[in-house]
Amino acid sequence: MKEAVYRPIGFVENDFQNPDDPKRIRNSNSVLVLNEKCIPAMEGLERFRYLIVIYHMDKAPGYREKVHPMGDKSIPMRGVLSTRSPCRPSPLGVTVVEVLEVKKNRIKVTGLDALDGSPLPDINPYEERFDSPMGLKWERDSNYRPRDIPYKEAL
Amino acid sequence: MKEAVYRPIGFVENDFQNPDDPKRIRNSNSVLVLNEKCIPAMEGLERFRYLIVIYHMDKAPGYREKVHPMGDKSIPMRGVLSTRSPCRPSPLGVTVVEVLEVKKNRIKVTGLDALDGSPLPDINPYEERFDSPMGLKWERDSNYRPRDIPYKEAL
Repeated sequence: MKEAVYRPIGFVENDFQNPDDPKRIRNSNSVLVLNEKCIPAMEGLERFRYLIVIYHMDKAPGYREKVHPMGDKSIPMRGVLSTRSPCRPSPLGVTVVEVLEVKKNRIKVTGLDALDGSPLPDINPYEERFDSPMGLKWERDSNYRPRDIPYKEAL
Repeated sequence: MKEAVYRPIGFVENDFQNPDDPKRIRNSNSVLVLNEKCIPAMEGLERFRYLIVIYHMDKAPGYREKVHPMGDKSIPMRGVLSTRSPCRPSPLGVTVVEVLEVKKNRIKVTGLDALDGSPLPDINPYEERFDSPMGLKWERDSNYRPRDIPYKEAL
């Protein structure tokens, strides 16, 4: 399988240099620091309340076929692809975050569980149509018209 | 920014070699064909109803700073990062899909909007805790205990 190469658009800035309680990380704030060249491409982001962040877990310990979900040994081991463990073949993380502020090339968010310095291959506005199981039902319903973009003022 | 390299775990198989109405693509079935070496790592996937698929839009026309969302010229252009356009810096697609069948290294799904042959850097089980805006609220609530894994029989 041919390798794919991505140039990150930025990196994560927060207080967590090492793995910690995921809940604690997610309840803290992080900043998505984008390359300044991306500022024009960011136009419109400030109107979204939620983003989907794709981050590279570059401190992941490497691939393991089976893992205990959430590192919890009371849960039986299973295939790493049926968990969210960082020990996956391509250590990409995906998380929905809430936007607190967008200022120039910096997006302050809460809800991210990435470590400080994690490279960011991509960010997307969260849209229920693509990102929620409900969206699948809507696509099947010919009467469905997508809701307006979830601007902050609309939520 | 340092480049990141991913080795895809598989590719998409469906009837869409060229861009088409996204709704039509999503309402069709696709097969996620994983590398046979991944079969042990897939154990457990069959119990999830929804997956988040990360696919490489390798036929994307290339980076554009501003685009009309969904190619609709009636919507004003805005920064590509505030849209789901494939013309993004790292052309990664993210979509929630419904699992129809898991057989050996083949996962039959519906709801995917990727073209035939798209490489797959990663797949994840859909978990509301990480993948829904509701999850952010739950993480803040110390009384919250994650729901059981959304096995098919539980939905």
